[in-house]
Amino acid sequence: MVKTSAFTRHITSINDLSKREIELIFEIAQSYLKDQGDPTIHYRVGRSKRIASDYILASLFYEPSTRTRLSFESAMVRLGGAIITSADPATSSAAKGESLADSVRVVGNYADILIIRHPKDGAARLAAEYAPVPVINGGDGSHEHPTQTLCDMFTLKRKNKTLKNLKVAISGDLKGSRTIHSFVYALARFGAIIEPMPAKGMELPPHVDRRLKEEYHCKMIPGGETGDGAEAIDALYVTPDEPHQPSLFSGQEVDYGLIIQKKVDAVYVTRFQKERWTDKEQPYPRIDAKFLKEPKYSDASVMHPLPRVGELDASVDSDFRAVYFQQAAYGVPIRMALISLLLGLQKNNSLARFKGGFREPEHLVYDQPLNVGLRCINKNCIAHDTMEAQYVRNKFYLIKSNTDRSYRLRCFYCESDIDRFVVAHKKNRWFAEDTTLLRKATEQTIKDYVAFSTGEDAIETGFHSKRNDAVSPFSKKENLESV
Amino acid sequence: MVKTSAFTRHITSINDLSKREIELIFEIAQSYLKDQGDPTIHYRVGRSKRIASDYILASLFYEPSTRTRLSFESAMVRLGGAIITSADPATSSAAKGESLADSVRVVGNYADILIIRHPKDGAARLAAEYAPVPVINGGDGSHEHPTQTLCDMFTLKRKNKTLKNLKVAISGDLKGSRTIHSFVYALARFGAIIEPMPAKGMELPPHVDRRLKEEYHCKMIPGGETGDGAEAIDALYVTPDEPHQPSLFSGQEVDYGLIIQKKVDAVYVTRFQKERWTDKEQPYPRIDAKFLKEPKYSDASVMHPLPRVGELDASVDSDFRAVYFQQAAYGVPIRMALISLLLGLQKNNSLARFKGGFREPEHLVYDQPLNVGLRCINKNCIAHDTMEAQYVRNKFYLIKSNTDRSYRLRCFYCESDIDRFVVAHKKNRWFAEDTTLLRKATEQTIKDYVAFSTGEDAIETGFHSKRNDAVSPFSKKENLESV
Amino acid sequence: MVKTSAFTRHITSINDLSKREIELIFEIAQSYLKDQGDPTIHYRVGRSKRIASDYILASLFYEPSTRTRLSFESAMVRLGGAIITSADPATSSAAKGESLADSVRVVGNYADILIIRHPKDGAARLAAEYAPVPVINGGDGSHEHPTQTLCDMFTLKRKNKTLKNLKVAISGDLKGSRTIHSFVYALARFGAIIEPMPAKGMELPPHVDRRLKEEYHCKMIPGGETGDGAEAIDALYVTPDEPHQPSLFSGQEVDYGLIIQKKVDAVYVTRFQKERWTDKEQPYPRIDAKFLKEPKYSDASVMHPLPRVGELDASVDSDFRAVYFQQAAYGVPIRMALISLLLGLQKNNSLARFKGGFREPEHLVYDQPLNVGLRCINKNCIAHDTMEAQYVRNKFYLIKSNTDRSYRLRCFYCESDIDRFVVAHKKNRWFAEDTTLLRKATEQTIKDYVAFSTGEDAIETGFHSKRNDAVSPFSKKENLESV
Repeated sequence: MVKTSAFTRHITSINDLSKREIELIFEIAQSYLKDQGDPTIHYRVGRSKRIASDYILASLFYEPSTRTRLSFESAMVRLGGAIITSADPATSSAAKGESLADSVRVVGNYADILIIRHPKDGAARLAAEYAPVPVINGGDGSHEHPTQTLCDMFTLKRKNKTLKNLKVAISGDLKGSRTIHSFVYALARFGAIIEPMPAKGMELPPHVDRRLKEEYHCKMIPGGETGDGAEAIDALYVTPDEPHQPSLFSGQEVDYGLIIQKKVDAVYVTRFQKERWTDKEQPYPRIDAKFLKEPKYSDASVMHPLPRVGELDASVDSDFRAVYFQQAAYGVPIRMALISLLLGLQKNNSLARFKGGFREPEHLVYDQPLNVGLRCINKNCIAHDTMEAQYVRNKFYLIKSNTDRSYRLRCFYCESDIDRFVVAHKKNRWFAEDTTLLRKATEQTIKDYVAFSTGEDAIETGFHSKRNDAVSPFSKKENLESV
Repeated sequence: MVKTSAFTRHITSINDLSKREIELIFEIAQSYLKDQGDPTIHYRVGRSKRIASDYILASLFYEPSTRTRLSFESAMVRLGGAIITSADPATSSAAKGESLADSVRVVGNYADILIIRHPKDGAARLAAEYAPVPVINGGDGSHEHPTQTLCDMFTLKRKNKTLKNLKVAISGDLKGSRTIHSFVYALARFGAIIEPMPAKGMELPPHVDRRLKEEYHCKMIPGGETGDGAEAIDALYVTPDEPHQPSLFSGQEVDYGLIIQKKVDAVYVTRFQKERWTDKEQPYPRIDAKFLKEPKYSDASVMHPLPRVGELDASVDSDFRAVYFQQAAYGVPIRMALISLLLGLQKNNSLARFKGGFREPEHLVYDQPLNVGLRCINKNCIAHDTMEAQYVRNKFYLIKSNTDRSYRLRCFYCESDIDRFVVAHKKNRWFAEDTTLLRKATEQTIKDYVAFSTGEDAIETGFHSKRNDAVSPFSKKENLESV
Repeated sequence: MVKTSAFTRHITSINDLSKREIELIFEIAQSYLKDQGDPTIHYRVGRSKRIASDYILASLFYEPSTRTRLSFESAMVRLGGAIITSADPATSSAAKGESLADSVRVVGNYADILIIRHPKDGAARLAAEYAPVPVINGGDGSHEHPTQTLCDMFTLKRKNKTLKNLKVAISGDLKGSRTIHSFVYALARFGAIIEPMPAKGMELPPHVDRRLKEEYHCKMIPGGETGDGAEAIDALYVTPDEPHQPSLFSGQEVDYGLIIQKKVDAVYVTRFQKERWTDKEQPYPRIDAKFLKEPKYSDASVMHPLPRVGELDASVDSDFRAVYFQQAAYGVPIRMALISLLLGLQKNNSLARFKGGFREPEHLVYDQPLNVGLRCINKNCIAHDTMEAQYVRNKFYLIKSNTDRSYRLRCFYCESDIDRFVVAHKKNRWFAEDTTLLRKATEQTIKDYVAFSTGEDAIETGFHSKRNDAVSPFSKKENLESV
């Protein structure tokens, strides 16, 4: 941690990138495409320029992923750089019981940029805290896969010039995969219209719905029959401050009717994860020629992160709307752009460079030792990995609701939200059952607060209920739980 | 499939290469050797020219093979190119249930040439149908290993200037390994004399014997005592239109006596595959110093594809006739030549370039959807892989016998031959128990025919026996089976 | 073996390097550091010079080791060279039953230098006997890891300018790990003072003690209270002919009192190997902030080969004395120096080049076929690997004691010492129960002697006890065993 240069920049979440930075990545990726001709056939890239010829990329893959790894490695090689690879968990130092925090500090001296793939949520962020060189998240548990999201967005952008007001249908399992959630947030940030088409029982979870509304200012338009015999849609998410496309306006007002009637620009098919599919009687929805015959999909690009395992029929491959192999191919120029920016190699480019360091956090950071107060609620979070126990902390962003002024905690590593907790004050030794106590917290004073899961936990640790509170924490707690 | 460029050339079988092309590969490999000096010590190659410096080779190895992979990668690097590697089946996309057809379409955008190793017979050919870049077969099941065959042939050529009339003894397990069969066919194509020396019960199978005779015009000379106390040989295969070496001629006639007496130019030792060896009482033949003391082997090169596991004694290593490590070393220049030709990098070379596309098939191709008619009889064929079910078809070459004008089907993927089948005509709705119906088939009309394993299958599918056939298919079938 | 060039040099043990050569490696490594700036942050090296651009390094790893492999590969790439990698034992040729001797002869033609990691002691030496290109030992069983030792020594040298009279405490498990023993010998060679701080029951074994005394001329100063309340030390090893540091002298005499009082310059923490720790009641010693508060460690660098698994507290990471991540980082320049020297790439460097061939052995070599006489006593020695049975021999260095003029045998491969054996003379057909018979052996006559484990073995093989010996070998043998 101490050794991380102040100018080292890491990409562990799509949220580590500003909109302007994402657009910069797209511009540079686009410039590589021009060199390459059509990326769907076959292309040779940028190697003539060899801007990365003095650099080494290390792939540290703690779980299998051939395509992600090969596409990063191809990107590095196309930039003229070299690669060193640890791809097999069984042959890694981790198999000897070494912590990720130690591994990246060692390998960070062998290479100039690290790609991390890890089964635990938030692992890439922990790696970034310790690595002396830039870290890119190549997928950490079910948390994030930011370069996949960049490819997805770039595919949409290339096909449609802009992301604003694009109507993007997301089909299948919208519940458990946080990479889908990241994609949805990114769409919202760029002003796309999101049409969830969940498989039965796999709807977007409430916390995503809330985040779309609270943090990305989405307005939800309730669903209904589309009028042409298609299935009912659940809802549409629209960012009201974004639609500038005249056709969707009625005078100065956004015309939601027009938005609902708008044809779908892209269908994003999510991977069927057999182990999560509980409804044995109903088949997982399958995108095929029949599905695409519906008029509203007549111009819809069909996207898929790949690999597919049955949810997207091979017969679609020859359809002009199929863009998923193109989408995969874009992985190379997108990653070339990202790597070159993180290594500071776009020097003679008129485009702006990335600023060093993590992107400035938008929220206060609560930071306590691991043995103090509440911990991340996500059991697959890297913060619960015993091998990392000496290196992680109880770190959370403090997110303020813009509806009721309450606070929630978002894990610094895996970005899970904790809604219910009590806040204690170290000096006063009391705690409050609601989170409003945090209103007075500043960057300086945040360290004086401790969060607990429950009042009991706070009391057990030696705190008492807020002195001017007439009700005991225990009776109060029942109320709390019923909220 | 749609995305394959018309000029992309693949090497999935030694038969994908014409004799002229094989000679071209040898010429270029030879030119790399000149740069290198003696390849048996240690050599550095062609890197100074770096003709592949803008290219990436991807190794996609679905089963273990260190030496094949490393020799391809060494070849690419010696040409100045870069490599990306997926070597562990357990960490590959296949482990996530992805089809090979999808994988090569994705990785084909990350690299400029693919090397495929796969446990299923014919997998490389399927990969080639879908990959947007050249595919080289690095071994597919027990089907083919064409670059191994090229190394073997090149070793013989280097040692003996020509392949014509070379007497090559093939020792050991000649039964089950199709890579041995490929080698035998290649020897026949180049006019070598083949002396099978099978282990007990591991003779060349009848279909290989037939193919040598029918398709490679070999004449078999029956075996007998060699006259110097050596074991009886089974037979010699000679291509009568090839022997131009005066010493083997008696006037204008080939003198088979001279051919039989001719000393052996090379002994090719095949690997002992324990799991296939059923005769526990008799040891697998072992090539050692004693064996090589026989006068007829006094000048015989000892070859082995390696690795060896006991069938070739280490004491032979220091014998001047041992060329197996040389043979392995030639893998690099041979693969350098092949890669550079497939990538079109021999531009300033006066030698001809490879034509794009598959080598023009010599036979009509029968091509039906997977659910129509008979299927490949080889259960290990990629055509039976459920993961590829959406991507393979019932595709066969139509091979015409030059003895009885009957036809057989040769699997497009794994090259297994099907001798017995019935042929139906889609429009007429009848079938015939023999294959002569196919005599009228042309490139245009072949799609109107359907092949079935048996008459029952044809009837079950709604066809009836040929109308002017007096006998019912069932009584007829018994006759068929007794043929 | 025949193919090994007389000028090919291998590094299989730290003892393969002379002191002058080790210093040369340090000089070159240092020169790379200058190019790089501070190696603890992040550095780019020598790639601009690309002196290895025509060369390929092959990693042949028969057991897992991410960090060693990646650091070799990083070093090669930083020199401008290319890498090919076989890192997974399960996908290697060994899985098919191929001997190491064959593997290196094949892969030695694909690459210009080999890094071998293998579970068997002495495997690297066997590989070196057969490889046509330089071999570097990347760790063979519990035998040696010479580049780790070079990193350790270089870290000490960098921090302290010289190794002479440095007081280096070695903490933890000093018993079973021969890599620790190698480190200790190297310290002795360079005149460092060694302070063993073993975990309970894990003291340096007697043979190491003896070797330090006999071969490295160490004098042991018995331990005692250090005077400041610290734990008793076992002993100090000092090389009396080395201390030239005036402060440690009292007139012309070495002042052992001063040496005992001297503060510790470095604490080398060894890895805790759970499976070897038998004393469940006592915890393995742990280096933490408290330990380092002792005044005698006030300037002591804390070293560790990494990975650590609990014996070195993470709280030490931010201590100014922690140098273990630096130590790991030095792996790259050290290996760059070694690779470039072995490949002969330091041509324009005014520094001397490595001489070809193995370092001239200091001792006579006893060399017999595997079925003759006694064998290595170390069951994990590569000489006992059945897969290598055709390639290894009973090879031993003949080490003469400088105290009692007796001899012992040191395994050529794994360097295990055999103290007790009987020596027979092939021509005379008799044997002697002591080893003094060997006094007359020369390079020419050593092949006439045969060593046996016991007199019985000799008799069974057809030898008889020395004729002028009155006592029968059996009664004598009892005496022998009581020695």
